[in-house]
Amino acid sequence: MAISMFQASIPVLVRGLTNLSAILDKAAQHAAARKIDPAALLGMRLFPDMFPLTKQVQLACDFAKGAAGRLSGNEPPKFPDEEKTIDELKARIAKTIEYVKGFKPAQIDGSEDRAIAIPIAGQTYNFKGQGYLLGMVLPNFFFHLATAYDLLRHGGVEIGKRDFLGPLETM
Amino acid sequence: MAISMFQASIPVLVRGLTNLSAILDKAAQHAAARKIDPAALLGMRLFPDMFPLTKQVQLACDFAKGAAGRLSGNEPPKFPDEEKTIDELKARIAKTIEYVKGFKPAQIDGSEDRAIAIPIAGQTYNFKGQGYLLGMVLPNFFFHLATAYDLLRHGGVEIGKRDFLGPLETM
Repeated sequence: MAISMFQASIPVLVRGLTNLSAILDKAAQHAAARKIDPAALLGMRLFPDMFPLTKQVQLACDFAKGAAGRLSGNEPPKFPDEEKTIDELKARIAKTIEYVKGFKPAQIDGSEDRAIAIPIAGQTYNFKGQGYLLGMVLPNFFFHLATAYDLLRHGGVEIGKRDFLGPLETM
Repeated sequence: MAISMFQASIPVLVRGLTNLSAILDKAAQHAAARKIDPAALLGMRLFPDMFPLTKQVQLACDFAKGAAGRLSGNEPPKFPDEEKTIDELKARIAKTIEYVKGFKPAQIDGSEDRAIAIPIAGQTYNFKGQGYLLGMVLPNFFFHLATAYDLLRHGGVEIGKRDFLGPLETM
């Protein structure tokens, strides 16, 4: 027995994106209750040369759709980075979930050794499917989810670890 | 073909902890160069009711040793939370890596359906091995790694995403 590539990717990504969308709902409620401009939350950065919240959400989506596309041998769709509001970011997340959920186990399973070439900063890195998922996709995906969470906590939004994790015992 | 429970856990955890230790080295160098008290970095929080850096590191270690222990059917060791310096935190990470690395594939593989009961806030949650790894261990582990990274970035330490990810193409 073992974990399939599908199980280690698609449900994990869908779950994280679903939690992120719910966290953005809480951020919107917080902003409305405190009369905070939501754009102030979306522009928050932890340091001037780090990405703001908007980009953290966009990147979480990009790692998710990139994984589903590349592991299945498809070109992932390009989503332009032009979201300006919480609702627009939630729409991007919804669109990403729809894309990722569209893959069936047979399309992802068996991709452990699939050659996946990723250009990063002008250099091409050559992964196999399993190393791409475990060493690239999941660390980056959770990095951007956690940093989005950290930014909102830093901004005073009342969320907790359970919002980040989602309902326990459900995987 | 598929990913084994060992492959999806032990090398991922060892890699994350190794990167965290290297990031703490950069924090120590930064503190020395800027004449910053390292304790000021270790006490940093992103919000007053979030855990400080020290606790983020301790928790990353705890999720790693908890996973290796429980998936293999062993009681994970208890490490008292008493580190006060960067060197002591690095020693805890090293001790955790040593413990986690001590498990062989045969001890972890086949644990997908192992019953794992986790007490959280006075309630017991019942997981199967696979759900515990994918829905609990990896999200929490990367959450605490990313938050440690975010705290140090917020504190001005010059690290980048590559420090968080470690060398690419090596998994």
